[in-house]
Formats: sequence, structure tokens, C-alpha cells
Amino acid sequence: MIDTAAPTQAEIEELLTDKVVKSFADSPHERLGVVMGSLVRHLHAFIREVRLTESEWEAAIEFLTEVGHITDDRRQEFILLSDILGASMQTINVNYETTGNSTEATVFGPFFVDDAPRIEHGGDIAGDATGQPCWVAGSVRDTAGNPVAGARIEVWEADDDGFYDVQYDDQRVSGRAHLFSDDDGHYEFWGLTPTPYPIPHDGPVGRLLEATGRSPMRASHLHFMVSAPGLRTLVTHIFVRGDELLDHDTVFGVKESLVKDFVQQPADAPTPDGRDLNGQTWARAEFDVVLAPGDE
Amino acid sequence: MIDTAAPTQAEIEELLTDKVVKSFADSPHERLGVVMGSLVRHLHAFIREVRLTESEWEAAIEFLTEVGHITDDRRQEFILLSDILGASMQTINVNYETTGNSTEATVFGPFFVDDAPRIEHGGDIAGDATGQPCWVAGSVRDTAGNPVAGARIEVWEADDDGFYDVQYDDQRVSGRAHLFSDDDGHYEFWGLTPTPYPIPHDGPVGRLLEATGRSPMRASHLHFMVSAPGLRTLVTHIFVRGDELLDHDTVFGVKESLVKDFVQQPADAPTPDGRDLNGQTWARAEFDVVLAPGDE
Ligand SMILES: [Fe+2]
Ligand SMILES: [Fe+2]
Repeated sequence: MIDTAAPTQAEIEELLTDKVVKSFADSPHERLGVVMGSLVRHLHAFIREVRLTESEWEAAIEFLTEVGHITDDRRQEFILLSDILGASMQTINVNYETTGNSTEATVFGPFFVDDAPRIEHGGDIAGDATGQPCWVAGSVRDTAGNPVAGARIEVWEADDDGFYDVQYDDQRVSGRAHLFSDDDGHYEFWGLTPTPYPIPHDGPVGRLLEATGRSPMRASHLHFMVSAPGLRTLVTHIFVRGDELLDHDTVFGVKESLVKDFVQQPADAPTPDGRDLNGQTWARAEFDVVLAPGDE
Repeated sequence: MIDTAAPTQAEIEELLTDKVVKSFADSPHERLGVVMGSLVRHLHAFIREVRLTESEWEAAIEFLTEVGHITDDRRQEFILLSDILGASMQTINVNYETTGNSTEATVFGPFFVDDAPRIEHGGDIAGDATGQPCWVAGSVRDTAGNPVAGARIEVWEADDDGFYDVQYDDQRVSGRAHLFSDDDGHYEFWGLTPTPYPIPHDGPVGRLLEATGRSPMRASHLHFMVSAPGLRTLVTHIFVRGDELLDHDTVFGVKESLVKDFVQQPADAPTPDGRDLNGQTWARAEFDVVLAPGDE
């Protein structure tokens, strides 16, 4: 009664994977066929490895449905999901391979705005954003060490309540600006000492973090995007040495080379540009940027 | 200027994967931590293997968003997506390992209904569903060859326009029924010769099929669910030998052991039960079911 020619369990599973991959092999859009084939191989390997149960499969379908339903013009839960799985950061890694001593990239995040105001050398990006004043200075160079003059430097950050300006309803523009490096490639500005904040965690992604015992917090950071003709645009952050969240950043954006000293200054310490901070303490940080050879 | 201690590109990518996997290692729900860890490893391996570009990542986020937005109580586009990636079928494979000569399982599909009418031995499941009459007969046995009396046999299928009853707006119940095997483990009924139909393909999943040169068609099939106390419930289909879609079933449900001869009969051939078909042609098929030892 037993059919000795019957395929083994492993053969049945492998045969299926091969068949699905093959179904994408004649894609008129060749790259799409390659990407889908690889996706199928890895998706099937996952299902086989964990021996995914049918109720787990159903839970996955329901979870993705919820992620889809909470996503709208203002909230992108699929990006949050990609972020907390490290998929966003891995995509950044793959697209910004390090070139010699060029500065490492990290995640872009959802809070960049295109038309942030311009400030002069030594200007202040804070606007209405509250927090401890922080003097940030450094240089922009290419990988050969030549200073890059006129590099466009976009900087943006949350206030000390953990919110970006765009998260408020009042159209404020604060905690963001752009400036240009000077003839020696130097730049300097007043910002705010970065503080930690959670990613939106009241949806399905927040529940997944909770169920797996993970925190929704991002390590304190200040965003940079630096661009100059002929050099590769750099999207990155700097992080605060000593921040206890450095090892637990929920989107895995931290790289050791991007962790900087934010040196605390007493309230009476003279400021670099003579600015009177009305008795506040302040901090200072340095960040020297090296741009890789470019794609533009 | 070059830091010789800098990690290599491969090290940077591997380090990230390890870090994300580790973030799920202390999950209070242990199995969830294991599943998420495996998912992360395979997802990252995919991103690294294809060197996923940022615009491809964006396209994936947009695609998933559309899949989420078209999904509602009546349409489940994530299940369609799982189906056309072979993920549904691989999950079935993993959960219904073959046991000796037990009949192979295949995808459940979205068109089963719980309260289909009961028919007697030799009854007709068609109701208002149109198509060529087809006599289906066989036996239900356990893996030792013993007949299984009183096995509950659910059968359901599309009409020859390619629609299940539940796809019409008029509450009809047709093309579905349940019956029980007799004391010798035999069963027989009138159904319809199966015809092909497309999965819903007017959404993002249909566009993906189109973009990759794939058809949305399912091979012709008749659904079975067979259950009996002490034996494993079997969810499967039978397929029609000679159907040109057998190698291109868009959900990858076809298994060689499930392809059956649907033998065409001339209009004047006497029917097994003496039924008068008013001059129509008809077909006959046999399907012997072997149930594995059970989980209930
Ligand atoms: Fe941020
Ligand atoms: Fe079906």
C-alpha cells in the first residue's frame, strides 16, 4: 500500500520553493524577478526553519492587516515595522558601503522637512524648541582630507519633550535648519543637547515591542544630512556618549563611530561666540564629516 | 587618516543582524522570540543578498501599504499575497507532514463555509451551480488500510463561471455540501467537473503577478475536508489530469498525487445511480482518501 516513490518531507518542501522561485524567473522586469526569487527563498526558509504553525500564520496575517489599517498619510506603521526589525538600517548599510574613512550613515527617520530655514555660521537652530543649548562644530572633508567648502548641512532634532516640530499641530518650525560649510570646510551652530524619545508605540508595532520585551525608545541623537557636488550625500546622526540607550536603540541606528562627547559646561563658562545664555548650563560637541566620492 | 580597526562591510552587516536577533532573545513569550529571531535573520539575508536599493525598499513599503488598504472584511489581500508567494502552501506542508501513505494536504482557500447542507450517499452538491455533472466516488481509510465509517466529508467548488456561491450577492448556497462515508468507508456524490478560475487580481497582488509575467489562474479543482475521530483532519483538493494549468497554479496547490482522471462520458452513457441527465454529457472521478493518525 505504501508508495515507495513518494517524495520525502524535505523534498516536498524544497520542490515547492523551487517551483515558486521558477514562477518569477521569466519576469519581464528582470530585476523584479531576481528580487522576488530571493524573497521567496528566504521567506520559505524562515517558514521551514521555525516550522510555522497555522495559527502563527494567521496571527501574522492579522498583524499585517492591523499595520495596514493604522497606516495613513500621517502615520507609516510599515516603516516603523521595518525600523524595529533592523530592515531599514540594513538597507542603509547595503546602500552606503563605507569608503576608506568616510563617515558612516544611519537611518533617515520620518522627521526630515525639505524647506528648513537657513542659518548663518554660528546661528541657532532651536527656535521655539526647548532644551539645553549645545554648541556643535566640525569640518567637512573628502576622503583625501581636502576641506569641502560650501557643503550643505541639514540638521534636525527633537526638543527635550521628545517631539519634533512636525509632531505639534501648530505649524511651528523649530529644532531644524540648514547651513553651509565655510571656505575652510568648517561649520558651527547652536543646537540642543539631544534627549531620548520613543517611536510611536500605540499601534501594532508598539504591541510587538511590548510582547517581546523591547523598549520603544530611540537613543538621544542629532540628525545630519550633508551634501556637496561630486560627493556622496551623507545621511546620519550623532549620538551622545554615556547615553544608556546606546545599546538598545529601537531602530538599531547607533554606530560606534557616530557616538560623540557632548561635554557639559558650567553655567558661567564663556561661550565660543560670546553669546549670553542667561546663566544656563550648556554643552559642546564636535563632529568632523568625511564625504565619500560621489554619485552626483 | 584611515582607521585600520574599522569593521569591514560584511562585518557591519552581520553585526547589525546579530544585534537585532539579540533584541528578541529575552522575549517573555519564548516562542515569539524564536520566531522573530529567525524572521530577522532571513529578512536581513534577503536584503543583503539582493543589495536592496532604497527605492526598492520604498516600493516595498508602498506595496504593503496598498495591500493593507484594500484589505477589509470581505477581501484579504495579505492572504492572497501569502498564497502567490507559496507561503500558504509551505505552511500547509510544514503542518501536514506525510505519514506513510496518507493523502497529501493542500491549501484551504478562502471559500469554505461552515454550515453547508448535508446530502445523502449519492446526493448532488450542485444546487444552482452550473456545470457538467460529475460522479465522484471513493473510500476513506486509515494508514493501516482499515475502512473509516462515518467520516465527515465536506466538498466545495466553483461553478463553471469560476465563482463560488459566496461570491454572489444573493445568499445562494450551491456547489457545496457534506456527507458521511458508509459502513464500508465508501462515499459517492454528484458534483460538477471542476473548471479554472482566477484569484481576485484587480488589486496590488494582481499587479505584482502582471509585473512578473504570472497568471492569476488556479488549476481546476474540487475541495475536500475529511475528518473522523482519532484521525488527522485532511484539507485538500483533487485536480483534473490534463488541465494545462496544473504546472502554473497561481497558489502552488497542485501535488502529483492529487491529480485525478476525470473521465468524460458520452451523453447516452448510463449513470451509476440510474439518474437521467437529460442528454447531458458527464464525467466520473475516483478519490480514495487515507487519513493519518490523529490529533483529535
Ligand atoms: Fe530622530
Ligand atoms: Fe478553490
